[in-house]
Amino acid sequence: MKIQKATNVASQEVMMEGSAGCRVRWLVDEKDGAPNFAMRQFDVAPGGHTPRHSHPYEHEIYVLEGAGEVIEGDQPRPLKAGDVVYVAPDDVHQFRNTGTTTMKFLCMVPHIPEGTPVKVLPECAG
Amino acid sequence: MKIQKATNVASQEVMMEGSAGCRVRWLVDEKDGAPNFAMRQFDVAPGGHTPRHSHPYEHEIYVLEGAGEVIEGDQPRPLKAGDVVYVAPDDVHQFRNTGTTTMKFLCMVPHIPEGTPVKVLPECAG
Repeated sequence: MKIQKATNVASQEVMMEGSAGCRVRWLVDEKDGAPNFAMRQFDVAPGGHTPRHSHPYEHEIYVLEGAGEVIEGDQPRPLKAGDVVYVAPDDVHQFRNTGTTTMKFLCMVPHIPEGTPVKVLPECAG
Repeated sequence: MKIQKATNVASQEVMMEGSAGCRVRWLVDEKDGAPNFAMRQFDVAPGGHTPRHSHPYEHEIYVLEGAGEVIEGDQPRPLKAGDVVYVAPDDVHQFRNTGTTTMKFLCMVPHIPEGTPVKVLPECAG
């Protein structure tokens, strides 16, 4: 068993193409021995966003703090603390902070074999 | 993609042996098409607890609200909002609400083949 305060886990800037103002903490991952999936916390600054992309694996998301939207395909849908999102494999998705405070969410993801393709899409016009 | 407010998902009383004062919401699960793991929210009333047990699959936990403890083997370790717990396969564990408000936590779990054994242990003396 491993117990830790989430904010004590080091965060790192998300360097993926199409990401802006995002930091990530890997709260539970393969280094802990987790056999199937990882828990990550994303902190997105006001105006920031994750890449608009799709990939052949799912996400399960819980919004902890702040407000924003998730782009589903090319449609924005509002999000706030306490909302849950299931992103199915191959769903195009992007998380955007439209608020004035940091948007924080958990994003669980299965362990991904190296080389699994990610399809990056251009930003929406809106 | 599926978006919902966690509190709009129906909760049900946890009927497992050794559980008291616990309700669970299945926020994302196989019914949503999630291929690998489920996200559940547990709400534990003051004085309530999950079973003291072990099983051959892991949990990944994030405490949303309230305060309590997790029994690791037979040792209580304090927990509060913002704490993360990784329970490895076969770790004996029990979550207890030692506070005065509802303790709420997310508990992610891989999809479990029917018939997977769960070993229930007696309550700790303490």
